[in-house]
Amino acid sequence: MSGFFTLGVVEMADAVADGSVSSEALAEEALQRLETLGPRYNAVMQIEPERAREAARAVDLARARGDKLGPLAGVPLAHKDLLYRAGRVATGGSLIRKDFVPDVTSSVLERLDAAGALDLGSLHLAEFALSPTGFNVHYGHGLSPWNTAYGAGGSSSGSGAAVAARMVPGALGSDTGGSIRHPSAMCGVTGLKPTHGLVPLYGAMPLAPSLDTIGPLTRTARDAARMMTAIAGPDPRDGATLPAPRLDFEGGLKGDLKGLTIAVPSGYYRELATPEIAALMDDSRAVLKDAGAQLIETSPPDMALVNALMQVVMLVEMSTLHRRWLTERPQDYSLQVRARMLPGLALPATRYAEALMMRASVTRDWLATTMGAADMVHMPTLPVAVPSIAETTAGPPEDIAAVVGRLAAFTRGINYLGLPSLSVPCGFTANGLPAAFQLVGRPYADPVLLKAGDAYQRRTDFHALLPPGCGALA
Amino acid sequence: MSGFFTLGVVEMADAVADGSVSSEALAEEALQRLETLGPRYNAVMQIEPERAREAARAVDLARARGDKLGPLAGVPLAHKDLLYRAGRVATGGSLIRKDFVPDVTSSVLERLDAAGALDLGSLHLAEFALSPTGFNVHYGHGLSPWNTAYGAGGSSSGSGAAVAARMVPGALGSDTGGSIRHPSAMCGVTGLKPTHGLVPLYGAMPLAPSLDTIGPLTRTARDAARMMTAIAGPDPRDGATLPAPRLDFEGGLKGDLKGLTIAVPSGYYRELATPEIAALMDDSRAVLKDAGAQLIETSPPDMALVNALMQVVMLVEMSTLHRRWLTERPQDYSLQVRARMLPGLALPATRYAEALMMRASVTRDWLATTMGAADMVHMPTLPVAVPSIAETTAGPPEDIAAVVGRLAAFTRGINYLGLPSLSVPCGFTANGLPAAFQLVGRPYADPVLLKAGDAYQRRTDFHALLPPGCGALA
Repeated sequence: MSGFFTLGVVEMADAVADGSVSSEALAEEALQRLETLGPRYNAVMQIEPERAREAARAVDLARARGDKLGPLAGVPLAHKDLLYRAGRVATGGSLIRKDFVPDVTSSVLERLDAAGALDLGSLHLAEFALSPTGFNVHYGHGLSPWNTAYGAGGSSSGSGAAVAARMVPGALGSDTGGSIRHPSAMCGVTGLKPTHGLVPLYGAMPLAPSLDTIGPLTRTARDAARMMTAIAGPDPRDGATLPAPRLDFEGGLKGDLKGLTIAVPSGYYRELATPEIAALMDDSRAVLKDAGAQLIETSPPDMALVNALMQVVMLVEMSTLHRRWLTERPQDYSLQVRARMLPGLALPATRYAEALMMRASVTRDWLATTMGAADMVHMPTLPVAVPSIAETTAGPPEDIAAVVGRLAAFTRGINYLGLPSLSVPCGFTANGLPAAFQLVGRPYADPVLLKAGDAYQRRTDFHALLPPGCGALA
Repeated sequence: MSGFFTLGVVEMADAVADGSVSSEALAEEALQRLETLGPRYNAVMQIEPERAREAARAVDLARARGDKLGPLAGVPLAHKDLLYRAGRVATGGSLIRKDFVPDVTSSVLERLDAAGALDLGSLHLAEFALSPTGFNVHYGHGLSPWNTAYGAGGSSSGSGAAVAARMVPGALGSDTGGSIRHPSAMCGVTGLKPTHGLVPLYGAMPLAPSLDTIGPLTRTARDAARMMTAIAGPDPRDGATLPAPRLDFEGGLKGDLKGLTIAVPSGYYRELATPEIAALMDDSRAVLKDAGAQLIETSPPDMALVNALMQVVMLVEMSTLHRRWLTERPQDYSLQVRARMLPGLALPATRYAEALMMRASVTRDWLATTMGAADMVHMPTLPVAVPSIAETTAGPPEDIAAVVGRLAAFTRGINYLGLPSLSVPCGFTANGLPAAFQLVGRPYADPVLLKAGDAYQRRTDFHALLPPGCGALA
C-alpha cells in the first residue's frame, strides 16, 4: 500500500483516524522517500526507522482498541536537527556538536509525541542555524527539489526540502531572522514563524533567544494550523511563553475573508522587490481581495532601523552563547559563521540594552505606520527570485554578502518585532523557482494569518504542485 | 475637625464611605501635616493644595449624591517625585530634571485617581532614585522621623517619612534594588516591592527597567493590599505587565497562617545579620509561627552570584538611559551618582546578555534552594541597624561604600529575581531606630505575602507606634 505521500498533515491524520490507511503504511512510505529523496536534496541528517515503526504500530493498535487518537495520530514527521530528543544526536548543523547527545527532549517534540505524531528523524540545517540559503560547509548545501543548482533556503533547509519533495507532510523549523520563511519560500511550501513566546523554545539549540521561534513548514496553512494546535501554548520551562489562553488555530479556517483588512505597504516595500516579484505580489493580492479581504495602502518608512536593531540583538545574543567556543575552538567554525558571530563580542552593553529598550516603541511605531488600521501586512517573503548556489557562494565576498543580505531584508526585522508571519507560495519566477508572499500579523494573531493563508490556498494550487522527480518512486 | 491622621488607608476610606468624616477634612489635615512635618524631615518636594481640595470636594459631593465610591475614595496620598502627572514637575530627585514637566500621567497615578484617592503632591527621593539612605546632594538628605540624625532610607525617602510621621496614610515608592524596602524598614512602615511586571511602569522615571518596580508604603499590610487592588494589573502601555488574571489582594487578609510554610535560610543569611537583628528575626518568626505558619530551615548558598548579576543589569540599564546626560552634563550629577553610573558604559554586551540569559535558571535555583518547599522566605530587610547620617557620609569613601553596600545585601538580589517582597517593621535596635523583616514570595504570590504580614500585624503593634513629635499638631 503506497501513494499516500501526496496527502497533507490533516488528510493523513483523517485517513488514519477513519481507518483508510494504517500509520505503519504511512511510516514505511515516508521512510522510503526519506531514504531515496533525502540524499538527493541533502535534506536528512539522521533517520530513525525503528522508532518510527514502533510508534506507528502503537497508533494502529490504539485505533484498533478504539482509543481516542491525538490530532496528529499516525502522521509521519521529521524535524530540523536542533530540536533535542533525549539520547539522539542533535548536531545543530555544526562540527562542534556533531556528537552532542542531549539528555532532555524539547517541549515541541514532547508535544508532537503527545499528539500522536511519528518522529522519523532529524533534518539538515545551516551551520548553527545561521544562513538564509542552506549553506553548510560541514554537511554540504541543502538543495532545492525544484532545481538542485539552487539552495533549499535556510536555515531550516531540510525541513523545506522534505516537505516540498513529499518525504513528510510537515516538519518543524526554527526562525531567528527568516529561517522558517526562507526555505518555505524557496521550496514552495507554507511556513509559519509564530509570535515570539507562543511556542516554547525549551530543548531547542538557541541562536538568539529573544529572536528565536519554532514553527511548522507544511504544504498548506490548514496543516500548519493543525501542527500549531499541538505545539503552541505556555510552558513552565520557558519563561518567555506567556500564561495566555490557548489560541484556536483551526476554528477560523474554511471561511472567506470578509471583514479582514490587509495592508499593502508602498514605497520601500515595493521598490526593493524586483519587477517579477512585484507582479506576483499583485496577483496574490487580487486573490486575497477576491476572497473578501479589503486592501488598504500604507506608506511606512523603510525597515533600516528595525533591521539594524535586529542585527545588534542577534550579534550580541549569538556571540554571548558562542563566546567560549569562538575562543577555544575557532577552527571548528566555518569562516563565514565565525565572521558573522565575532563582531558581537566587541559591542558595548549600552548598544544592546538600547536595542532591547527600544523594542516596544519601535514595534508600536511599525504597527502604526506599516500595518495601520489593518489586521495584517502583505509583503514579499523574498524581494528577489531565488538565487542560484553559484551566486551565493562564488565571486567576491562583498557581492555574496549583498546577495545573501538582501534575502533577509523583509524577514529579519519581523523577529525583532516579535510578530507572527506566514509565508505562502504564490507562483514562480522566470528561473522556475517558487516565489512567496508573507502575511505579518499583530502579536498572537497567528490564527488570523492561517485563516487568510487557507482562504488563499483554497483559491490557488501553487501549494499543490509537485517538484519534478518527486512523484511516486520507481 | 481633625485627629484623623492616626487612621490608615482602609480606615480613612471606610470613614469617608460611611460619612463619619469628609474627604475635605482629611485633605486639610494631611495638607497641614505635610506643610508642618514635611520640612522637618525633608520629606516633601511639592504640595498641590488646590488640586487636593478640589478632588476632596468632588468625592464629598459624589457621596452626597449617593454615587458608588472607589476603593480609595477621599483618601489623601502623596508619592515619590518620579511618578509623572501631566503638567506637574517631576524632578526625579535630580538637578538635571529640576524643571522637567511631563506631558503624560503615569498609569499608577491614573489608577489611583480612578480609585478616588487624592494626590496631595510629590515626595522627596534620592538623586535619580539611586541611594539606600536617602542621600541627595541637590535637595538635602531625607530624614528619619524617629531621629533626624538618621536618614529616612532611600531612595523613596519622602514616602517612608511621610507615612511614618502620619502626614499621609500611604505613598507610592519605587524599588530597583531596595528603594521601597529600605525606607520602609528605616522609617518603621510597611512596604511592598511587587512582582516585576505586576504594577505598570508607564509614566515613571526609569532607573533600570528590568529591575524597576512601583509599590506602596503604608502603615499596614492591609493598607498595602488596598493600594495594590487599585494599581496592579496589565497595562497595554507597559509590555512587561502580563495579561494575567487580576489578583485578589484583600481576600486572604484577616485569616491565620495555617497551611502556610515559611523558609528560614541559615548560614549566610544568619551570619550577615548583626546579633541584635538576628534576635529580632527570631522574635518575629515566633509570632508568625504563633499565627499558624510552619517554619522550615533551608541551607542555601549566599547571594553573591545573584547580587553580582543584579549589579551588571543595573549598571548597564542605568548607564544606557543616562548615557547622553553623563556625557553632556556630567557636572549636573553628584559625584557619587556619576561614579556609580559611569562603569556601565564600559561593560561589553556579552556580560549583560549573559546576566539576562541566566535570569530564569538562577531564579529557579534560588527558589529551589532558598525557598525550597515553602511558600515564602523570611529574612532581614537590612542585616544591620540603621546607620546614622554621619556613618554614611563622613569618613573615607571605602568605608562609606561598605556601609551603604551592606544595606542592600538582602534586597537588591530580589530585583534581579523579579520576586515580590514585603518589608514589615518588627521592633527597634539599640539606637532606637526601627528594624524589619522581609517576606520574599514566588512570582505573583504578592497576596500571600500581604496575608502573612497582616496576620503578623494583628498580633504586634510595631506598625502602630508613633515617632516622637508626630502626634497631634499644636
